[in-house]
Amino acid sequence: MDVKAAALKLHSEHKGKISIESKVSVKTNEDLALAYTPGVAEPCKVIAEHPEAVYDYTAKGNLVGLISDGSAVLGMGNIGPEAAIPVMEGKSILFKGFANIDTMPLCLATQDTAEIIKTVQYLAPSFGGINLEDISSPRCFEIEKVLDETLDIPVFHDDQHGTAIVVAAGVINGLKLVGKDLSKIKVVLNGPGAAGTAIIKMLLSMGVTQALICDEHGILAENRQGPLDDHKRELAILTNPANLQGDLGTAIVGADVFVGVSVADVLTAEMVQQMAAEPIVFAMANPVPEIMYEVAKANGVKVMGTGRSDFPNQINNVLAFPGIFRGALDVRATTINKEMKIAAAEGIAALIASADLREDYIIPSPFDPRVVEQVAEYVSQAAVATGVNRIPQERL
Amino acid sequence: MDVKAAALKLHSEHKGKISIESKVSVKTNEDLALAYTPGVAEPCKVIAEHPEAVYDYTAKGNLVGLISDGSAVLGMGNIGPEAAIPVMEGKSILFKGFANIDTMPLCLATQDTAEIIKTVQYLAPSFGGINLEDISSPRCFEIEKVLDETLDIPVFHDDQHGTAIVVAAGVINGLKLVGKDLSKIKVVLNGPGAAGTAIIKMLLSMGVTQALICDEHGILAENRQGPLDDHKRELAILTNPANLQGDLGTAIVGADVFVGVSVADVLTAEMVQQMAAEPIVFAMANPVPEIMYEVAKANGVKVMGTGRSDFPNQINNVLAFPGIFRGALDVRATTINKEMKIAAAEGIAALIASADLREDYIIPSPFDPRVVEQVAEYVSQAAVATGVNRIPQERL
Repeated sequence: MDVKAAALKLHSEHKGKISIESKVSVKTNEDLALAYTPGVAEPCKVIAEHPEAVYDYTAKGNLVGLISDGSAVLGMGNIGPEAAIPVMEGKSILFKGFANIDTMPLCLATQDTAEIIKTVQYLAPSFGGINLEDISSPRCFEIEKVLDETLDIPVFHDDQHGTAIVVAAGVINGLKLVGKDLSKIKVVLNGPGAAGTAIIKMLLSMGVTQALICDEHGILAENRQGPLDDHKRELAILTNPANLQGDLGTAIVGADVFVGVSVADVLTAEMVQQMAAEPIVFAMANPVPEIMYEVAKANGVKVMGTGRSDFPNQINNVLAFPGIFRGALDVRATTINKEMKIAAAEGIAALIASADLREDYIIPSPFDPRVVEQVAEYVSQAAVATGVNRIPQERL
Repeated sequence: MDVKAAALKLHSEHKGKISIESKVSVKTNEDLALAYTPGVAEPCKVIAEHPEAVYDYTAKGNLVGLISDGSAVLGMGNIGPEAAIPVMEGKSILFKGFANIDTMPLCLATQDTAEIIKTVQYLAPSFGGINLEDISSPRCFEIEKVLDETLDIPVFHDDQHGTAIVVAAGVINGLKLVGKDLSKIKVVLNGPGAAGTAIIKMLLSMGVTQALICDEHGILAENRQGPLDDHKRELAILTNPANLQGDLGTAIVGADVFVGVSVADVLTAEMVQQMAAEPIVFAMANPVPEIMYEVAKANGVKVMGTGRSDFPNQINNVLAFPGIFRGALDVRATTINKEMKIAAAEGIAALIASADLREDYIIPSPFDPRVVEQVAEYVSQAAVATGVNRIPQERL
């Protein structure tokens, strides 16, 4: 049976992939008297008087809301909320399997930015954190920003930051291998969508000083001929003060790192030959990357990562989001800030000792059992260091 | 340890009562390829093309959203969404334990009627049904009505109909015991809130022709002196065409059945002495009923039910909601209509054979293992009979 048929069978024989289970028994009147009336009134009263007690007496502290509107689902685009459910249930079981985090996948029947924001604000009391998923760019930026500012629980759009964190870990280790310094490299990113935007902003915040961004119309430049929406204008100002014009072929000359979150085959053999010595390429278009692995290697690429599990150095978000939420929930962080994201990337990178780094091993396996624990540890320490934890340090 | 301390311990040692679990494994790349990318795209595509397939490939078909705004929580009133979570998690584990139904308890940070309606409409794609819970009267009526009209899944406000259905079952069996006919009895109800309103409407729809409703200002009558909001005016018109004025003491004279969903001790010994022969009393104020069991029996009450498990004939919603949703979900009903509610009451009542009926046994135990199956069966048959099932009868 091929993967498609096997996947359909798996999903239909279980009628989905999640269930909601009880942690206590309800078989006798005595059970009911404690778990339901009249006993349940006691935790209710304590929480009404001391709101923070909700973390002691309910599932909230380990419960993340997985919110999507079905507008940008994997490679399938805007397939709507019902069709997005299998992906969201998949995310739910990854949270559970990798970090023992309970999640409720909720696919909303609205794609209006303001309505999504309000809905998540109304849902927030039940959750210890919010993971936004498969919401199209540029709406995803405002939704995340407003929710993060208005809620006292962490809000994280995984399509942006999960990918950015794993790429950043790859860049850290790739540069170690080729002996280059973050502050001196030139990065070219193709595809300034949700993930691309987060990647470039994260690399800049980590110390990269030279970067250019391309879309299908060429280099983002404030006064270019091609179309430029507000979001891309902001990125142009951020990365291209010299107002350099041109296409990807122009941008790539002398680049140390190429990051593709775009479409198949846009990075040619000729282009990689124009890059700086020992170039690093992350080509994450799925299923066919921006340049095929063999072509890249044959044309001088030193380190290559893709989104696929059948090539070395898979950029897989599951390396990041389970440990990030584990760390944030463990200290009841009010946000997942820049420092926590960078810490997560450093934690992933540090799992491979310098002596063990190889061209085909700069990113640990998603099944490396040390990943979640290390990322959680790095993230919770960064939360405490930046003062966004709500569990006092002496209780940690 | 007393119940209060034991309840606090139970809730804190498990950090709440529910968890979200995975039904499939995510331990290898092969697992991920089926449950997540790339395999998960297949069920997504099928659902995008054939929306009803969401019931085959996701948890939706067995998943109920438990929605509250924390405005009317048990006897505690408006304690807000966080403090309502223990009750909602309690409800969740009852759904699971009694009917193997998965539920997501969601406590909303708004008490605005229109906002609650919109939020539930946005959430609906994920759910096979909606159970409204602990939402104060009269807002609960409009919320349920609009949601039931606009959604293609069942919407059920348990505080109204769960109680009404079990009381109706008690009335059916109580009347059998005393040999009276539903169409000839006089019912007096005290407390026209969420449950009281549903009870009186249900009894009228079953054939009761004489009923009076009292609140703290006396009998609901269209032109009475006391306050009368729109909701109560509608009930007055429905039940009191003669515009009878007076208090509970006036109303109760000659009544065959008293139903209390109000406050402690409002039904006096003198009042029950004024009722018709072999009176039936359901006194459900909690924890202290409208009249104490011993007082009622000493003053001639033939059949008595309360909300408490330490007296005979406990009116416990758990007799109704698990089987009702089981039956509705099993046939993918689009609503839970009047006929399905009456069928549920008849199903509960029919569990006690006429020969086994006794004054202290007109309502089965909530732990009677036959209850859920029988209620589900009666409800799904009524759904099919009224044509609100979406699973074709030949597939049942």
